[in-house]
Amino acid sequence: MSKFLSDNAAPVHPKVWEAMRAADSADNPYDGDRLSAELDERFTDLFGRDCAVMWVATGTAANCLALASMCQPHGGVVCHQEAHIEVDEGGAPGFYLHGAKLMLCEGEGAKLTPEGIAALIDPIRDDVHQVQPHAIAITQASEYGRTYSPGELASLGDFARARGLGLHMDGARFANAAAFLGGDAGVAAGPVDSLAFGFIKNGGMSAEAVVLFDPAQADMVKYRRKRAGHLQCKGRYLAAQILAMLDGDLWLENARHANAAAQEVASGCGERLMHPVEANELFVLLTQTEREALRGQGFEFYDWGAEAARFVTAWNTPEDDAAALGKAIASL
Amino acid sequence: MSKFLSDNAAPVHPKVWEAMRAADSADNPYDGDRLSAELDERFTDLFGRDCAVMWVATGTAANCLALASMCQPHGGVVCHQEAHIEVDEGGAPGFYLHGAKLMLCEGEGAKLTPEGIAALIDPIRDDVHQVQPHAIAITQASEYGRTYSPGELASLGDFARARGLGLHMDGARFANAAAFLGGDAGVAAGPVDSLAFGFIKNGGMSAEAVVLFDPAQADMVKYRRKRAGHLQCKGRYLAAQILAMLDGDLWLENARHANAAAQEVASGCGERLMHPVEANELFVLLTQTEREALRGQGFEFYDWGAEAARFVTAWNTPEDDAAALGKAIASL
Amino acid sequence: MSKFLSDNAAPVHPKVWEAMRAADSADNPYDGDRLSAELDERFTDLFGRDCAVMWVATGTAANCLALASMCQPHGGVVCHQEAHIEVDEGGAPGFYLHGAKLMLCEGEGAKLTPEGIAALIDPIRDDVHQVQPHAIAITQASEYGRTYSPGELASLGDFARARGLGLHMDGARFANAAAFLGGDAGVAAGPVDSLAFGFIKNGGMSAEAVVLFDPAQADMVKYRRKRAGHLQCKGRYLAAQILAMLDGDLWLENARHANAAAQEVASGCGERLMHPVEANELFVLLTQTEREALRGQGFEFYDWGAEAARFVTAWNTPEDDAAALGKAIASL
Amino acid sequence: MSKFLSDNAAPVHPKVWEAMRAADSADNPYDGDRLSAELDERFTDLFGRDCAVMWVATGTAANCLALASMCQPHGGVVCHQEAHIEVDEGGAPGFYLHGAKLMLCEGEGAKLTPEGIAALIDPIRDDVHQVQPHAIAITQASEYGRTYSPGELASLGDFARARGLGLHMDGARFANAAAFLGGDAGVAAGPVDSLAFGFIKNGGMSAEAVVLFDPAQADMVKYRRKRAGHLQCKGRYLAAQILAMLDGDLWLENARHANAAAQEVASGCGERLMHPVEANELFVLLTQTEREALRGQGFEFYDWGAEAARFVTAWNTPEDDAAALGKAIASL
Repeated sequence: MSKFLSDNAAPVHPKVWEAMRAADSADNPYDGDRLSAELDERFTDLFGRDCAVMWVATGTAANCLALASMCQPHGGVVCHQEAHIEVDEGGAPGFYLHGAKLMLCEGEGAKLTPEGIAALIDPIRDDVHQVQPHAIAITQASEYGRTYSPGELASLGDFARARGLGLHMDGARFANAAAFLGGDAGVAAGPVDSLAFGFIKNGGMSAEAVVLFDPAQADMVKYRRKRAGHLQCKGRYLAAQILAMLDGDLWLENARHANAAAQEVASGCGERLMHPVEANELFVLLTQTEREALRGQGFEFYDWGAEAARFVTAWNTPEDDAAALGKAIASL
Repeated sequence: MSKFLSDNAAPVHPKVWEAMRAADSADNPYDGDRLSAELDERFTDLFGRDCAVMWVATGTAANCLALASMCQPHGGVVCHQEAHIEVDEGGAPGFYLHGAKLMLCEGEGAKLTPEGIAALIDPIRDDVHQVQPHAIAITQASEYGRTYSPGELASLGDFARARGLGLHMDGARFANAAAFLGGDAGVAAGPVDSLAFGFIKNGGMSAEAVVLFDPAQADMVKYRRKRAGHLQCKGRYLAAQILAMLDGDLWLENARHANAAAQEVASGCGERLMHPVEANELFVLLTQTEREALRGQGFEFYDWGAEAARFVTAWNTPEDDAAALGKAIASL
Repeated sequence: MSKFLSDNAAPVHPKVWEAMRAADSADNPYDGDRLSAELDERFTDLFGRDCAVMWVATGTAANCLALASMCQPHGGVVCHQEAHIEVDEGGAPGFYLHGAKLMLCEGEGAKLTPEGIAALIDPIRDDVHQVQPHAIAITQASEYGRTYSPGELASLGDFARARGLGLHMDGARFANAAAFLGGDAGVAAGPVDSLAFGFIKNGGMSAEAVVLFDPAQADMVKYRRKRAGHLQCKGRYLAAQILAMLDGDLWLENARHANAAAQEVASGCGERLMHPVEANELFVLLTQTEREALRGQGFEFYDWGAEAARFVTAWNTPEDDAAALGKAIASL
Repeated sequence: MSKFLSDNAAPVHPKVWEAMRAADSADNPYDGDRLSAELDERFTDLFGRDCAVMWVATGTAANCLALASMCQPHGGVVCHQEAHIEVDEGGAPGFYLHGAKLMLCEGEGAKLTPEGIAALIDPIRDDVHQVQPHAIAITQASEYGRTYSPGELASLGDFARARGLGLHMDGARFANAAAFLGGDAGVAAGPVDSLAFGFIKNGGMSAEAVVLFDPAQADMVKYRRKRAGHLQCKGRYLAAQILAMLDGDLWLENARHANAAAQEVASGCGERLMHPVEANELFVLLTQTEREALRGQGFEFYDWGAEAARFVTAWNTPEDDAAALGKAIASL
């Protein structure tokens, strides 16, 4: 069997396992251990600007904790109508933001633009009957495997600042976007105020990083993390995962592997591709008959509506499997 | 150095590590894997009554998710005034229960009694100006290392049922209580409606079990777990931890070790003990001079106010360390 | 000046004033007075089925308190995308329902249909990643002044029951809908589970009625009303308003007057009407020049987008004003 | 019958009625009317310092909206353990503050002191496991009818500022306190950041004033007021009540009358008084037999525990009734 269902259940990378085992000896509880203590500096180096960093166990918690630092309960967060926080997080933003509203925006490839956001929020009257936007959330790479270019990020940053809105980035597949953009984390993050930097899909086990580029927010987010039951007493094992991913740029290496596998598949898809492949997800027009044929050859993947399929590559996708899938699609 | 600070930062047990590594291959996401699927049956066997079981990463989340199934936002949860949920969870119950109130009760050894609870809630007028109790939360073993006997649990269960209140048990150190009571999990849980069964302090890494003895509540709690960002996509690694702890009763073995170490220490404490030692925590009257003397001998522990110290043993406390500490205290 | 801006700032009806003054003598606090005590029975008579009734000061509170009785914090409420609770209540449902989600449905005339709702909710996977619907909210008369017929209400009721969903009715202009439908409150409410019965726009000052057709919910809603700061200590003055409106069917008389005025205006609108006029609101296609011309003649009203205007009649709209407006529009 | 049950159900003062009727003509909705527009200036004059003012229908809402401007959901509000917000508001602070914690403090006469607050909050470790205080709430006059002197208020203000805490005043009976202190509202408010200025118990019908001495908070509080369903569309009738109470210092005149009646009663109580009478409430030691005797003479009042009674005077308490009660008690 050759699996392209998702990257969210891939095994843990051996170097991550090693680092976790080694953390047995670092025995201060919560985030008082020496590994957790390294995070701020390591990410500040990586991004080239000051940041405060906390581990949490899921991307949902990472997104919500960051958003809660920039949106009041009576405010709203602009996001794409197909954003993960709207569609797939079980209403977590409503919980963490105490009833704040997600304000759903359109945009090609599940990406937002200043124009699209303006079209949504400009008609909102500045009166108490209508929820006012407090923040914007974008996803890098997007829910359709698209990346924001540095220019696009800059213009969103300008727009957010001009409107007094916070700007958060859901980076469940941030590594894949960064790899696509050349490997510079700072470039891939652009001017966002916060980032949920995903490691779990990319070889980690249970650790994502909440990156706050305004370190003054860290205090509040730490209290909220505890309050949400996300302060693990053996947090050193989460820090260890993240540090192992940063060491020697394993995060980039893994993402590059997944992206390359995706390109391998894409090379066989031609006109069938619904979106340019800019990370590790492919959305491919395939009839039911064609999908059945592929499954008959041992490929596993999800349907995407009635006329398409989604394929996701991962850090451990065998190159041969990707090549075989590309050929199989080309041969349909 | 000889550590008695807490059991919450002890290393992960080797058998737990093994089980986690083996889970690499069980690659369905969330709780769709074969390990998570075993939980309901395994715990039903363990407790001798039907239950639905979910993993979460912290005891705080486990307690709060269970409590949210039995207390409405406009209600209250009776707990001891020194209960962990009141004192040490950063206001998590207020978050998860949407503003419900903790109603603080007195009781010797941080334990509740029907009489104590009645004294608290009987004066509450049955009108909308006053928050009404919806549930009771007890801790087994208690915050002072005390256990509830089967008879005490039965009377609390009768009381709760008679008053129409849910009954939840915080079991961060449930294993230690069960070991003290003879090793039967069902006996140690008594008639509670839900239990946060702790494994992390007892050799696990990041998995506690929410045990719902009314399996009909499982659906709601699963939605709430996701909504709280506690549904990990690689949940199989949490299930693996729990199953490893259940296999061959490792949970009991570890707890017995910790309890025995605590008794070893206790044997040197005599009249200094503030509470009977019924689990793995000791609260010992020691002057500052005496505490300094012990620390000079290499023992690490926390002060407990100005005139006492708290010592906690763990699954990995060396017997010699415990014996040495007991002797050192006896020699003061 | 001739005002068609809204019915929400009309003066209080003289009979309501009288009843309020008379309530000076009914001096039990909160809802312990003899006037509040009459509500359940009076509305049970009016609707011909059992109900429990509470006053609150606003329609927003009335809607939210009722919805909170049928939607859990992790669930969703299906409503029209232009529903008042979505567009104009400042995020109140997010507050009262503790972060539950409004699920936005399309529908002609701001009305919902079983088919429209099914199209929205059928694609929702029954898993924890997606918020599940718990309730439906409709508006009678709708935000475009349309009414649900008895047949439409019956089919919505059947649909809701079949899907296990609660059914709430926002009745800010319920009286106008009932008047349009012939004057029977029970017919206009159909099989809904709860109704926010509006009196303020129809001659009251500060009292709406939360009508719960499942009286078993009353206890919870009363606690929630207090918790929301909506239990007024001199509640008798709210009860008095409502009873005055019920006496001699003043609620119907006032609504009939407003509806008749709306029909008077409508008679001059012809093809300009964007929606059939079934209550006391008119949405009329008018260019900016035409709107200016009307304003030049002393008519006050709100623009409705760039190419239309909204006119609202009230219990106190002079017949001559309505006739004059109808003629003025016809003469454009 | 001669009533001393409470001031919360007294009739509406005739001048308030007049002002409300006159408001029929001020027909802008919500708080866009000319009466609401006067509030900021009128209260700024009254207090001698800048403030922003909003009407709401209950003291519960007024307190909670103000507190929400100074306490984050993860923080706490220090209040007296017998404070109305803790004991009698149905958990409203938990709702409005999204689960923030009330931190219960002791203090003679239901009054707080810097020393008492310090004793409560100094032991709180500055770590995320413990809820940190964000604000202090005091009640003027207190739940036992005591007033804070200017010196006491100044020291509380200094303490709050030094600790970075907001300072809110529940002024359900603020007028009575101000009257007791000589009639200057600014003196009675001292340096608080916000005040829930009560008018309802003092001759109003349904309007309290949220007074924000940091007008920059007004924007947020206005959004929260709407979100809580407390923005009434005919708000002019609330503004009218408040303005009527300010005109000619009716608020003071009414409070002085109630206070004088309380002193009249107090003059007969001697050693029976449990608290000095500094407003319009009396707590009087009376055996059950004595209470029965008083009731037999036609006096109505509430028991206060088993050995005492509470008497409350109001703006309309007949002087003769107060004198008669004083004499009746003296004669027991």
